[in-house]
Amino acid sequence: MPIAPCYCNNEVANSNEVARNNEVAMREVKTLGLLGTGVIGGGWAARALHFGIDVVAADVKPEMEAWIRGAIENAEPALARLTLAPLPRKGTLSFTTDLRVMAQRADFIQENIPEQLELKQRLLAQVSRHAGAEVIIASSTSGLTPTDLQRDMVAPQRFCVAHPFNPVYLLPLVELVGGAQTAPQTLDAAARFFTYIGMHALKVRREVPGHLTDRLQEALWREILHLVNDGVATTGELDDSIVYGPGLRWAAMGTNMIYHLAGGESGMRHMLAQFGPALKWPWTKLEAPELTETLIDRMVEGTQAQAAGRSIRELERLRDDYLVAIQQVLRQHDIGAGSTLRALEERLYRDAGAAHPGTDPGGQLRLVDSPVRAEWVDYNGHMTDSRYVQVFGDAMDALYRRVGVDEAYRSGGHMFYTVESHLTHTGEARVGDLIYATTQLLALDDKRLHVFHRLRRVRDDACIATGEQMHLHVDTRAGKTAAIDPAVHARLEGILNAQAALPRPREAGRQVGKPGH
Amino acid sequence: MPIAPCYCNNEVANSNEVARNNEVAMREVKTLGLLGTGVIGGGWAARALHFGIDVVAADVKPEMEAWIRGAIENAEPALARLTLAPLPRKGTLSFTTDLRVMAQRADFIQENIPEQLELKQRLLAQVSRHAGAEVIIASSTSGLTPTDLQRDMVAPQRFCVAHPFNPVYLLPLVELVGGAQTAPQTLDAAARFFTYIGMHALKVRREVPGHLTDRLQEALWREILHLVNDGVATTGELDDSIVYGPGLRWAAMGTNMIYHLAGGESGMRHMLAQFGPALKWPWTKLEAPELTETLIDRMVEGTQAQAAGRSIRELERLRDDYLVAIQQVLRQHDIGAGSTLRALEERLYRDAGAAHPGTDPGGQLRLVDSPVRAEWVDYNGHMTDSRYVQVFGDAMDALYRRVGVDEAYRSGGHMFYTVESHLTHTGEARVGDLIYATTQLLALDDKRLHVFHRLRRVRDDACIATGEQMHLHVDTRAGKTAAIDPAVHARLEGILNAQAALPRPREAGRQVGKPGH
Repeated sequence: MPIAPCYCNNEVANSNEVARNNEVAMREVKTLGLLGTGVIGGGWAARALHFGIDVVAADVKPEMEAWIRGAIENAEPALARLTLAPLPRKGTLSFTTDLRVMAQRADFIQENIPEQLELKQRLLAQVSRHAGAEVIIASSTSGLTPTDLQRDMVAPQRFCVAHPFNPVYLLPLVELVGGAQTAPQTLDAAARFFTYIGMHALKVRREVPGHLTDRLQEALWREILHLVNDGVATTGELDDSIVYGPGLRWAAMGTNMIYHLAGGESGMRHMLAQFGPALKWPWTKLEAPELTETLIDRMVEGTQAQAAGRSIRELERLRDDYLVAIQQVLRQHDIGAGSTLRALEERLYRDAGAAHPGTDPGGQLRLVDSPVRAEWVDYNGHMTDSRYVQVFGDAMDALYRRVGVDEAYRSGGHMFYTVESHLTHTGEARVGDLIYATTQLLALDDKRLHVFHRLRRVRDDACIATGEQMHLHVDTRAGKTAAIDPAVHARLEGILNAQAALPRPREAGRQVGKPGH
Repeated sequence: MPIAPCYCNNEVANSNEVARNNEVAMREVKTLGLLGTGVIGGGWAARALHFGIDVVAADVKPEMEAWIRGAIENAEPALARLTLAPLPRKGTLSFTTDLRVMAQRADFIQENIPEQLELKQRLLAQVSRHAGAEVIIASSTSGLTPTDLQRDMVAPQRFCVAHPFNPVYLLPLVELVGGAQTAPQTLDAAARFFTYIGMHALKVRREVPGHLTDRLQEALWREILHLVNDGVATTGELDDSIVYGPGLRWAAMGTNMIYHLAGGESGMRHMLAQFGPALKWPWTKLEAPELTETLIDRMVEGTQAQAAGRSIRELERLRDDYLVAIQQVLRQHDIGAGSTLRALEERLYRDAGAAHPGTDPGGQLRLVDSPVRAEWVDYNGHMTDSRYVQVFGDAMDALYRRVGVDEAYRSGGHMFYTVESHLTHTGEARVGDLIYATTQLLALDDKRLHVFHRLRRVRDDACIATGEQMHLHVDTRAGKTAAIDPAVHARLEGILNAQAALPRPREAGRQVGKPGH
């Protein structure tokens, strides 16, 4: 028996009062008012400002102004990397200890004070007396119910719960819950605003303590407390039990979809048949409901709706794709499953006894060894043009490190820039092929370095590309060319002299479309 | 009061029997035996084979041979992308309906039959009679306890639970649990094997029904069943309540660490003080334990050990880094929070009124518009050489699409390859700069296309790079040059003629290190 797709309280929707309230137009949100400026208030401020909304934050403690400015500053580096789409001009923040000032200037008010019902009721009522009836007032409460919170408010129909998750500036989820007096268009208008600032508004169809997310989180949390209390595991072991396994899946599919996939071709129905008996077993201290036919039908119909016609096989591919991608991302940050992957790879490289970069075959500098990575190939399965240039860039970085051009040198204001390159492609590389680059210095003067790279496949030593490049030494502050540091120059000259006997590459000095000379 | 770091059953560790068993050397694992070949058995097979372990799979149903081969084949594309580190030669799979054959050939046996205690006890006992005492036998059971499972086995000290997670070939977690008769070195040797095949072995210090992970998953699952049963939410809404919020965090930090961070500078202790009262509230149907001083101390000491000296601020940065990176990965797969990010970006691009590619300024083809992405810049904050080539490649892809070189054309066996390029760099681009590329056709014959690209900053229209390229038309099956399809040739010729009046670029025909002519 499916649940009807109703996102509002039917009793309210049918009342005359709401019919009247339907005519109240909610304001366009240019200024967000914050009541309370802790971790959650600071997160709201950072997100809103980043997407061009002005913020007026109210807190009784004047010292919270410095605090919230610090919180916004801390959020900025991550927010700046979230998207590179063009952003509107950042909003401006103002702070007041006067709740009335905030209430009169805001187009939308978000309350984030401590989780105490009476305190919230009193301050929400107070704010509602100073803000126009067309200003939505929302509460960040983790689990108090909207009917209780809106009790003493003026114009309670414009109130709803809007429960975000920490860090508010990065996590998209916001649960929207209306109370007995909430008008449906309050939820719609709130959803539009939160979507505008990059969030996913989840309308909760019925108010229950803890809404939806915190009920699930809290069940898991209480089970954790029992296990620690009973001496079964440490907090670290319990965290590991999630992050190396189910947590990776939960980044993009919830328990229901995951169990639907685990059920094989017949999905959730098979899963319930197989693991239904376990619901009677003491696998948690939480008693399960009776697995009635009605409940089974709801679970099956719900997950079928989620699958939206996609086969188990398709969904498995989607799941596998994101599980691979997430683990590769976590590897870069050396955390959780990413650390496991890193350790595995170190073992594999060790076992393979891969050639170490830096050996110099036939007078050439062998500066880079690498496999061709999956993201380096095009639709033909071949390594793309740009990745050849990337490998030659890696070779130059290695050369520079070898002659003393390091982070200190760069922060001293000098650097080499590529000004010109000529590339030839004479072969192919495919995913997994091991490749290496060799580098030959062709010429050097006080400001310029002329080099020639070859890229070879390890398997057959075939040369698959060449790259001739001119690099210019620059004073980055003055923004013009400058003489190479004498010590660096001497080391480069040493290499140039050591390679003087090497033949000049056939491809050097070529123009596009003209055979070599 | 911290829990002592003991991973074994003390009673067993102190017995004489175990002292004797300590002398039994576990075998090096070259062949993994599988008892049962469902979703879990297939996952074990795929993972083991991929990392060079032979597999002998036993199932009473002969039709499971085709099934497991299919499962391994389905796992392969994702596994192939997990790591590009050099892999040993893939293991080989054999199948038998005779449990004895498997038991005699395997160095390590993993049982994956249905979750029925008596069935598992009977078959584990049977297998243990045919496998040498130095062969570890492990059960994939989700929650049955090892003491029960090993009851009737020969040499029960080499038995443990090794509980993996679906998909076994991608998720690293395996819970290791010993029973009353399990020898400590069984767990150590099992951990070594699972680590070898890329897993994270979590040793569970005490056997409880459901081990650790499934207790946490099951609490959440039963709360889901209650909410669906009570008509509060659909399965889809409950999944959304996780994947857009806590699920993203759980990909790399567990509830304890996350709550430690949510507590601000004083971490878990503050969090327990703030949310302790909520443990009495009906936020789940699971009753919480009493929040005693002992429990508070354990929670605080546990999370402090996890933090390992890192400040809340440091941990927040780590959390933010992975939350940003994961959302960007999910955007590529257009799933969960990635879909939200995608929708946000579409709105931002729309609002910014970004110029659409395809307009032709001054007779040039404007084929690519893009912001400079964060991953495109080097340590100087400048767009790297290789990304210029990538953008020129994108321009060529757009040009090819325009003249009819599409997926069908490529799968027909023809394609253009870049054979030669010449690049000049005359300016810089930084993160967030909007850039665009224009393309001019210089020459065309029946097999070759000579083009010239310019890359400009939108802000000031400055040309920051040029790229001259020769592309060759190839018959990919024959592996040699071939005439361009007449219809494609005619379209290219049309563009060439339309651009005939454009001046020849100054940088065309240059050699590296020689000024233009």
